[in-house]
Amino acid sequence: MGKKSRKQAAQGPSKGTQTRHLIVDRALNIAAQEGLGVLSIGRLANELKMSKSGLFLHFGSKSNLESAVVERAALYFYDYVIAPIEEKGLQGIERAWALCDSWLDFLEQRILPGGYFFTGAYFQCAGQSGAIPRQIRQAVRDWVDALGQALSQARRRDEVRGGVDIVQAAVELNCVLIGAQWSQLMAYTDHKSARLTILAHLRDIASEEIPAHVFESVEAWQAYLKNRAD
Amino acid sequence: MGKKSRKQAAQGPSKGTQTRHLIVDRALNIAAQEGLGVLSIGRLANELKMSKSGLFLHFGSKSNLESAVVERAALYFYDYVIAPIEEKGLQGIERAWALCDSWLDFLEQRILPGGYFFTGAYFQCAGQSGAIPRQIRQAVRDWVDALGQALSQARRRDEVRGGVDIVQAAVELNCVLIGAQWSQLMAYTDHKSARLTILAHLRDIASEEIPAHVFESVEAWQAYLKNRAD
Repeated sequence: MGKKSRKQAAQGPSKGTQTRHLIVDRALNIAAQEGLGVLSIGRLANELKMSKSGLFLHFGSKSNLESAVVERAALYFYDYVIAPIEEKGLQGIERAWALCDSWLDFLEQRILPGGYFFTGAYFQCAGQSGAIPRQIRQAVRDWVDALGQALSQARRRDEVRGGVDIVQAAVELNCVLIGAQWSQLMAYTDHKSARLTILAHLRDIASEEIPAHVFESVEAWQAYLKNRAD
Repeated sequence: MGKKSRKQAAQGPSKGTQTRHLIVDRALNIAAQEGLGVLSIGRLANELKMSKSGLFLHFGSKSNLESAVVERAALYFYDYVIAPIEEKGLQGIERAWALCDSWLDFLEQRILPGGYFFTGAYFQCAGQSGAIPRQIRQAVRDWVDALGQALSQARRRDEVRGGVDIVQAAVELNCVLIGAQWSQLMAYTDHKSARLTILAHLRDIASEEIPAHVFESVEAWQAYLKNRAD
């Protein structure tokens, strides 16, 4: 690290970094409600009362701006959904549960405005080629991989039956979450039933080490986890 | 019907109607790949080599254009997925199955380009207020209602067990379809496994009138339906 950057670190982020941060947050706010496709340097310049040429200095192209927005959305998702679970050091099936629970919480707390940014963006462009669709697929794949890793760990800890297809189980948990979001947007169901469906899926793959009745309600499951820890 | 319109009917749609049709199809093509939000009269005028004022004559506003696009997408969906099943007069559980099968076929045949237009649009804006989100929610609700009606009919025909929550069962079938689309975009699974999951769901709600083993494969199910009809 050179002298100049050490000085900057002591002073906090540079003005340029702060401005860039502000622009990306504003752009993410628009994209989460109206889709990535509507982003334009002209509109952002107008909303932020900045010059188009100033914005161009930060991003150079619409595609760089879109990429920064997807990266920022993934960062918010990581910070809110995954990081707290890593900090707590949760393991195995408890970790898989906590990830799903935290995902639902991320929606309930409306950390991002609009519907679910990644799901909307994914259905809209995951079938297409190009850098942005690839980046969106990767963000979604990272999430399913995180679920899969928790389930693999659960398998090693004998919390999941042998013979369970771990990748398939992770994909199914994710589909339950997406279905829950769909149903909630339609006001057919709430997230309480989503959590029960997640528990039912975990019961189906759990080994006999875990009594089946603890998957019957969120309270029973949490009591089981607490007793086990004590 | 007045003289003028009878004359028009004999000659086919008017020039104005044809032009409008062309514009909406082009707009749907863009929206299905890049999202409704990107539509603009300026871009369409440019792509169709028409004047912006000419396009304005047809739609008046971006919101009218978006509304026409959602209506057209719903029409394609109805024509491809639902109408053939109504024409065949399929009833009850066979009708519920045929609707799901036809939905998957609609995706496989890529009747609309891009990902799944309604799913992307739904996740993007169903949580928002306004005429377009309402129209999208309605189109999706119509579909789930069609599934629910087939299941209600199946219940009356004793093909579905008493005590099954029909709305919940329709929502779950739809969530399986959305999950199948998600998995296929990620190349985790193909639509064959989606059809098996649909059959497993139908088995879970079916009455004892239908032997459980016929839900084990698409071939066994089709053979059962054929035998029953003979």
